[in-house]
Amino acid sequence: MEAKKANILSPNSLGQNVNPDLDIERKNNSFSIEHLTNILDGGTNNTKLRREVEAVLEADPEFSQENLYFQNQNERYESAVRKTVYLSQKMAKMGWTVDGPEQNLCFKFLSDDLAFNIHVVFMKSILALGTDEQISKWIPLANKIFIIGTYAQTELGHGSNLRGLETTATFDVATQEFIINTPTFSAMKWWPGDLGRTATHAVVFAQLYLKGRCYGMHPFIVQIRSLRDHSPGQGITVGDIGPKMGFENIDNGFLILKNVRVPRENMLAKFSQVLPDGQYKKQGSEKINYFTMIVIRVNILRSSVIPCLMKACTIAIRYSVVRRQSELKPGDPEAKILDYQTQQQKLFPQLATAYAFHFICDYLQDTFQKCYNQTKEGKFDLLPELHALAAGIKVITTDYCTAGVEVCRRACGGHGYSLLSGLPSIYTKVVPSCTYEGENTVLLLQTARFLIKCYGMAQMGQPLPSSVAYFSSVNFGKCQAQEKMDFLNPDIYTDAYKHRALRFTRNAAMKLQQLVQAGKTQYEAWNQCTVQLARAAMAHSHYIVVQKFTEELEKHAKESAIWRILKNLCDLFALHGIFSNAGDFMQDAYFSTEQIDRVTETYLDLLTVIRRDAVPLVDAFDFSDARLNSALGSYDGHVYQRLYEWAKKSPTNHQDDRVFKTYLKPLFQNALSKL
Amino acid sequence: MEAKKANILSPNSLGQNVNPDLDIERKNNSFSIEHLTNILDGGTNNTKLRREVEAVLEADPEFSQENLYFQNQNERYESAVRKTVYLSQKMAKMGWTVDGPEQNLCFKFLSDDLAFNIHVVFMKSILALGTDEQISKWIPLANKIFIIGTYAQTELGHGSNLRGLETTATFDVATQEFIINTPTFSAMKWWPGDLGRTATHAVVFAQLYLKGRCYGMHPFIVQIRSLRDHSPGQGITVGDIGPKMGFENIDNGFLILKNVRVPRENMLAKFSQVLPDGQYKKQGSEKINYFTMIVIRVNILRSSVIPCLMKACTIAIRYSVVRRQSELKPGDPEAKILDYQTQQQKLFPQLATAYAFHFICDYLQDTFQKCYNQTKEGKFDLLPELHALAAGIKVITTDYCTAGVEVCRRACGGHGYSLLSGLPSIYTKVVPSCTYEGENTVLLLQTARFLIKCYGMAQMGQPLPSSVAYFSSVNFGKCQAQEKMDFLNPDIYTDAYKHRALRFTRNAAMKLQQLVQAGKTQYEAWNQCTVQLARAAMAHSHYIVVQKFTEELEKHAKESAIWRILKNLCDLFALHGIFSNAGDFMQDAYFSTEQIDRVTETYLDLLTVIRRDAVPLVDAFDFSDARLNSALGSYDGHVYQRLYEWAKKSPTNHQDDRVFKTYLKPLFQNALSKL
Repeated sequence: MEAKKANILSPNSLGQNVNPDLDIERKNNSFSIEHLTNILDGGTNNTKLRREVEAVLEADPEFSQENLYFQNQNERYESAVRKTVYLSQKMAKMGWTVDGPEQNLCFKFLSDDLAFNIHVVFMKSILALGTDEQISKWIPLANKIFIIGTYAQTELGHGSNLRGLETTATFDVATQEFIINTPTFSAMKWWPGDLGRTATHAVVFAQLYLKGRCYGMHPFIVQIRSLRDHSPGQGITVGDIGPKMGFENIDNGFLILKNVRVPRENMLAKFSQVLPDGQYKKQGSEKINYFTMIVIRVNILRSSVIPCLMKACTIAIRYSVVRRQSELKPGDPEAKILDYQTQQQKLFPQLATAYAFHFICDYLQDTFQKCYNQTKEGKFDLLPELHALAAGIKVITTDYCTAGVEVCRRACGGHGYSLLSGLPSIYTKVVPSCTYEGENTVLLLQTARFLIKCYGMAQMGQPLPSSVAYFSSVNFGKCQAQEKMDFLNPDIYTDAYKHRALRFTRNAAMKLQQLVQAGKTQYEAWNQCTVQLARAAMAHSHYIVVQKFTEELEKHAKESAIWRILKNLCDLFALHGIFSNAGDFMQDAYFSTEQIDRVTETYLDLLTVIRRDAVPLVDAFDFSDARLNSALGSYDGHVYQRLYEWAKKSPTNHQDDRVFKTYLKPLFQNALSKL
Repeated sequence: MEAKKANILSPNSLGQNVNPDLDIERKNNSFSIEHLTNILDGGTNNTKLRREVEAVLEADPEFSQENLYFQNQNERYESAVRKTVYLSQKMAKMGWTVDGPEQNLCFKFLSDDLAFNIHVVFMKSILALGTDEQISKWIPLANKIFIIGTYAQTELGHGSNLRGLETTATFDVATQEFIINTPTFSAMKWWPGDLGRTATHAVVFAQLYLKGRCYGMHPFIVQIRSLRDHSPGQGITVGDIGPKMGFENIDNGFLILKNVRVPRENMLAKFSQVLPDGQYKKQGSEKINYFTMIVIRVNILRSSVIPCLMKACTIAIRYSVVRRQSELKPGDPEAKILDYQTQQQKLFPQLATAYAFHFICDYLQDTFQKCYNQTKEGKFDLLPELHALAAGIKVITTDYCTAGVEVCRRACGGHGYSLLSGLPSIYTKVVPSCTYEGENTVLLLQTARFLIKCYGMAQMGQPLPSSVAYFSSVNFGKCQAQEKMDFLNPDIYTDAYKHRALRFTRNAAMKLQQLVQAGKTQYEAWNQCTVQLARAAMAHSHYIVVQKFTEELEKHAKESAIWRILKNLCDLFALHGIFSNAGDFMQDAYFSTEQIDRVTETYLDLLTVIRRDAVPLVDAFDFSDARLNSALGSYDGHVYQRLYEWAKKSPTNHQDDRVFKTYLKPLFQNALSKL
């Protein structure tokens, strides 16, 4: 217990050695950490490249995150702009290309510290929706950051329902211009990143009006600020929406447009254009654009959401072998808190979840690629399945990662509330993912609509998309597992997840049908089933994650140590899901009380199996101390010294004595004569 | 739809009228809002007094919270000190006495804005642990804030396990002083409020050493800063622990003591003293002190934790009748989001939970009083039950309120992430309650220990404490309910909760016994059962809350409208618990699949019943706009205007153009010639 024995007056020992309580955890792992890291990176070359890029960034003091937790919103914004501009120079110097693998690694490493995030979306939308002329006019400028754009879609009163957006763009034949307006308070653009204090241009989504008729939502490039002095253009009111939970580095903004005129050629016109005489012309299919959204979703999961859970696990598990509290047995030294069953039950399912979601991204990526290839040949039949999958997996991933991060944070006791632990900012980073890029409840119901449709197809004996092929199983009967070991059989638990998802889908479908037969409209009936529909979609997505994790195992069948540890994680993920949702699995007596009791025992036994490899399993995520930026989670485990060293730098310790002189001294002097 | 029609250029209409979408919700309530408010306040006189005090505070610009969300930690601290000093002057002027009902109302109203919170605990600990001489020396000074104290118990390495604290106090007979030391890094005092930048004194808990022998933890009054210039005393290092999730108004601190000497009379000596020759003398029983902790817990639940959930419900439910999104039926105007079943399923259980917990506090208070009266007569036999109850109810209340606040916040979509919604700061206020005043897992296991003991007594046919009297029921058999309506019978669902709690307790007790019989030590066996023990304690606490809610109903049997609405809430709370934990209730086939399906239907039907009264039910909490401090939740429902008006005041909109000039202008000028 080096940390505890250290003399308080001795020189700072940080970085010199590893806390023995943590060190010993790395002496007994059942598998090669480096090998697992390579698997997570997708190959040794990727690990190598990642480490090279990270080393470059870490060695550069411009990218230091040292004072991050002490900065206010204005300071975070300024620092993000500075770092982003500097990064583009650095990349040029390093020969790292735009959109190359190094850039992605930089973004992943520095994400909370960068600005101009939506500028990227601005560019992607021009590339996707613009004509060749529009692309060649705007993209070179945007690529070099000579202009900065934002994507102004969401309004104060409208997020999920895009058709309800209220901003208008009315074509004026006389001047060949669109007149763009914010007709109501709720129509104000609200939330777009980079809009508040940065962007010079915006892709503004507005209802297109031609000769009094509305043609629906269309995108327009609008210059909103002067390139010369940054002042807002005529008729434009623009600003920052103020303080938020998280995202302090980003200037989310508002935008009001009053008779703002943009030339006809500023409507992004790849799929529809307005002719000089005000005629509307549609061309091509926008379906292909749908892929942009899916790509964005997968990227967010992989580079932003899942790493949050991995980081939180790393911090909480390392801390839990350094923190000692109470005796497990009277007279013994205080125990590592990770040796308590309750602490294992909090943290290990999160660890298993992080691995499960890592592998599901690979699957989603593959499915995406297959679908994209088909689409290029003009076939769109995989699209509904891809949408349902991507939506459901986005929901379960963001929902579980968010809950998991908070479990990890709270498992660190009081210190989990200190920003210096890194955990609060991981939470505020991950939780918005439940809302942005498709609100989770809205997405679940989209997945549910696909499931209901497929359930109907199954009833009629039609062929089914592969992810729902199990709908054609007539009857699952009851679970056949008897012994505890049976529940470690992937077929057993995968079948259980299938049964649960199908049961929920069938229930919802039957209820829908009954309500309609009883005279309700389709819409009323649908609304009255949405709680159950959302559950069905969640159960289906859960099944997919379990199923794909078991398939991942097969890829490692020949690497027995890696296979075994991944198998343990897969089992833990699956059994934790049954343990936590036992009622779902006991429907139709699929599991009996005795079987659920055995699942519980098998699950609890797994916790002690994972215990041995817990630290190696988080080490395999291979986060550098700089990337974790946590006083609790560093590789060397000197948590108490680090908390103290960092706290001393807090601005709250470097204030003048104004508060004392103004408010306290006049009170305290009354006690002087008495003490 | 006033809000939507308002011309964006018209003068600000805030406060002039109520948004019709919200107004109409108040025209159709099934009960008297004022009557329900009186019940919640504990009588019409209390409502009157509360409103009088709130009116005084709201009318005083010194207490304005207008810029709260824009302030950094240093500004929050300074503002809290200023307001607290001002409040004590104001109270004197108003004739409101210290510890009087008005003071409590002030604290409840201003809680996030005040400083010196732990100063109160400093005083209470002197009153509880000090001799008459010590009380008369310190309390008059502390009462007038001529000195400010803190309660320095928690250490960097020790929270829950007080016996493990490492600070030492060694008696020096020669000088008649205690020498207090922080022997290790982890022994540093860490977290105490008011310590970081304010306190002049501290009650420091340290292991008492007399002639080389340790006598355990004792409290010592230590002066830590000069009253004259606020500099730390000799051998003292003190400072602020830096940024945290929430509690920005409070200066949580660290404290290192190096050979700090305090006179013998500074050990608080009501229950044990050190004689001049270094002899140790114990006197009286400290058991009575235990009540202080229980009182603090009940007060925190009532004045701080439960109001967080009530506020979050108020904000989210009012917003959900103003926010419109998508059509329920094609062609209809966009629907209020509260009309979607999924939104009801998010918010209404939280509303029912807030009411359930409000009433459980009354019960806890009564039990406390009964127990306290007995103790004064020297009888301590109710104490273990009181402890188990208070611990379990603290856990379920803080846990559910925390989860509920976050559900409400996330139910507000993107705007729930804006600090201006008020919701993020409600979350950061409520969540630490899961950790402070007894970490929830630790407390649950204390309750579980009581349950296991009582289960053993039940097995031996001994008489049981009233809260666990149901343990003597030999067998609950199966639930007898058939029709949907049967599940609205409180006896039916209360029995189900009993069965669940007893089942979990019995399972854990049997597993404990089996493990011991198989050769495990008591301690190993206990650790291997803690996940299940914690579940048993949670299930028992859940049962108590349901049970006491049904008893509350009986008090209102003659007020049919109030009775009916409370009955709906009670049913909703109980059935939501079954719906969400179905597996627990299906154990031993207590509920069949068909019965669970019927519970689900009954539960979902209740949502539509509550819908009508949703806004009146949150209005009954009677939060003023000033107290809510939410752009989304104000009484008039003008959410979009208010978000905009407030955002404009953000410091992010009042910066100079340094960022533009330094980083952006040099880039943008490259585009000037091209656009």
